[in-house]
Amino acid sequence: MSLKEEILEIAKRTKEASRVMANLSREIKDKALNQMADALMEDENRAGIKQANKLDLKAGKEAGLSTAIIDRLLLTDDRIASMSEGLREVAALPDPVGEIISMWRRPNGLEVGRMRVPLGVVGIIYEARPNVTADAAGLCLKSGNAVLLRGGKEAINSNRAIAKVLAEAGTRAGLPEHGISIIKTTDRAAVAEMLKLDKYIDVIIPRGNQQMIKSILEMSRVPVISHGAGNCHTFVDEDADLEKAVKIAVNAKVQRPGVCNAMETLLVHLKMAPAFLPVVAEPLRQAGVELRGCSRTREILPEIKAATEEDYETEYLDLILAIRVVDSLDEAIEHITCYGTGHSEAIVTESYQHARRFLREVDASSVFVNASTRFADGNQYGLGAEIGISTQKLHARGPMGLTELTSAKFIVLGEGQIRG
Amino acid sequence: MSLKEEILEIAKRTKEASRVMANLSREIKDKALNQMADALMEDENRAGIKQANKLDLKAGKEAGLSTAIIDRLLLTDDRIASMSEGLREVAALPDPVGEIISMWRRPNGLEVGRMRVPLGVVGIIYEARPNVTADAAGLCLKSGNAVLLRGGKEAINSNRAIAKVLAEAGTRAGLPEHGISIIKTTDRAAVAEMLKLDKYIDVIIPRGNQQMIKSILEMSRVPVISHGAGNCHTFVDEDADLEKAVKIAVNAKVQRPGVCNAMETLLVHLKMAPAFLPVVAEPLRQAGVELRGCSRTREILPEIKAATEEDYETEYLDLILAIRVVDSLDEAIEHITCYGTGHSEAIVTESYQHARRFLREVDASSVFVNASTRFADGNQYGLGAEIGISTQKLHARGPMGLTELTSAKFIVLGEGQIRG
Repeated sequence: MSLKEEILEIAKRTKEASRVMANLSREIKDKALNQMADALMEDENRAGIKQANKLDLKAGKEAGLSTAIIDRLLLTDDRIASMSEGLREVAALPDPVGEIISMWRRPNGLEVGRMRVPLGVVGIIYEARPNVTADAAGLCLKSGNAVLLRGGKEAINSNRAIAKVLAEAGTRAGLPEHGISIIKTTDRAAVAEMLKLDKYIDVIIPRGNQQMIKSILEMSRVPVISHGAGNCHTFVDEDADLEKAVKIAVNAKVQRPGVCNAMETLLVHLKMAPAFLPVVAEPLRQAGVELRGCSRTREILPEIKAATEEDYETEYLDLILAIRVVDSLDEAIEHITCYGTGHSEAIVTESYQHARRFLREVDASSVFVNASTRFADGNQYGLGAEIGISTQKLHARGPMGLTELTSAKFIVLGEGQIRG
Repeated sequence: MSLKEEILEIAKRTKEASRVMANLSREIKDKALNQMADALMEDENRAGIKQANKLDLKAGKEAGLSTAIIDRLLLTDDRIASMSEGLREVAALPDPVGEIISMWRRPNGLEVGRMRVPLGVVGIIYEARPNVTADAAGLCLKSGNAVLLRGGKEAINSNRAIAKVLAEAGTRAGLPEHGISIIKTTDRAAVAEMLKLDKYIDVIIPRGNQQMIKSILEMSRVPVISHGAGNCHTFVDEDADLEKAVKIAVNAKVQRPGVCNAMETLLVHLKMAPAFLPVVAEPLRQAGVELRGCSRTREILPEIKAATEEDYETEYLDLILAIRVVDSLDEAIEHITCYGTGHSEAIVTESYQHARRFLREVDASSVFVNASTRFADGNQYGLGAEIGISTQKLHARGPMGLTELTSAKFIVLGEGQIRG
């Protein structure tokens, strides 16, 4: 069987399975999730997964992967337990499928409503994070979708081992055989084949670096929900509360600098700069942050490096912060419109009017008033586990929970109505 | 300026205008809509539009376009009045922008909600229907989007004339100059250029034939919301009410056979067939419908042609109907799953359980119980004017009103919260 045939075959079978998945009761889905969680914790399965993981770690070290990637690859008992716990948490979430979002009566007596239904087949393309195998499988299952998993070659043995344990436990609980499918080949061309199959795959969710996402967006005929870069800003307004502003800015930068919702540029109102900048610089420096400022920033903090145009464009994902002094709320919004990536943007202000304007006018997936951008996260919002964060505008924007893995169809109840 | 530069330039300007459009008050938007409606009815403008339309009609006749297309092209006083009326109706609809869909409080006191926002720039690619120029412009304006219109070359003079009247009236009412933009070149390559500009165009909505939509889907880097074919079924169940079944089947087939929500195949339960088929055949024949049946249908209606596999696959858009006798609800659902295009599907039944199963299990943008599929329409559902019908699952499914021209961003209100 050629690669093309192999991918087509598994996509077809996953599509067939999706019809069964769509009509499973919550009872069966939750039973499957809990049995999958149990199976991950069984000694024999855990040993098998760790054994497979060792192969990946060995190959990774031989291939000279960075310690950061090797760390992501590593599966410990704790990490396996946390995957298992994740599945139980998904089981505890409400079932989105079948929800009647709204229903109304028309003058002719027809009742028209919208019912939540699964998307069908969700394709997940990810990198060296074996935990995605369990997380994505759990969320897709609960939302009534079949999932077609395509992990990176670095984690292929781990992914296969996890998927096997999950699929077997799932089948025992009543899932169709291909409800949770995994592409086993590590051939890169498999991704290109997947992206052509819009007849069998309803949506692709890529989880990985910006370059990978970009190339998927360019190639795919299947609709993609993607997670763009997070060049996030915090604007400290002229009448911000100084203490809140310092706390929020420091948290947004240093609490976890390597993630998409961390702050990359701090914007400060001209009137606030003299009081605020020296105070915020202290804890930032103590946390090891390198500051780079515009000329007006450097009048107040002369010891720091100059920020360039490139700094404003950069998602550092590191302990570096660009700082710019602006004349007004308008200039802050203009800077964000120009350099922002539409991920997460915050204002610190005590002005009711400025808060309202910022909320309305800033075009981003999450907009904050007086809170750290680090909260941009499905769990923090109370959506339950998230399958990713969308920075696009169609279908889903911001953290994506179970609901974003569904569509809605119209249902119409009549008693013989015809159109005149 | 090359074609490529020309399209890039207009897309950029439309994107800039979209930022202003997004923040217009309902007051200004409604004023613009009403002034646009007035402008279409001014004698001078109307004469100009009809003059331009004459050029299109003349060219169309010379090019040998079919009478059906020539009829679509034709703009009469009545049709212009109806475009004008359409704009007033859109003005009367509620403004979707700024709606807080829901808002909840988190344990840490953060308030998290979702606010409806415009998509940005909506690209409409359409054919020889000049009325789409006004309809699409009105719906995009009301939903806070800028619109980039690209009509077919057959209607180019009419489209330009209408767009000019609308844009001038809009600007007078306070819209930015490029809030309603039209691509003036008739060069086919302009579409290919548009489809590359995912940086400036947020969504493409094609309105046209299946071949055009298919080629746009294949080429586009901009997300597309598309309207697939409507191979629609009506299933007359074993315990259907005979009278309702006849009324509904005849209406679904003959009330307007050339449109996407008309029935193409009639499925009849084996037990119902002997009583139902002779009764329904009569009015269908009287309406000029050619019947094509499976072998079991032809046992009852021996005079009709045999239906082939191809008949079940065909969206006739004509006075032709395929008929198939099935053994059960399951077989009916299987037929629909196999041949249906996910547009609109109906069951006629008095069985509570079968109604529920059909509603749940049939995967289509609209699912009907005891009503004609012809109701699949934004106006009929009470959504107001529709920009199209989506047969895909992402973002919008079924008739698309103003809401489907929006996205939703998360808004988060805090009082200094940081993440621990």
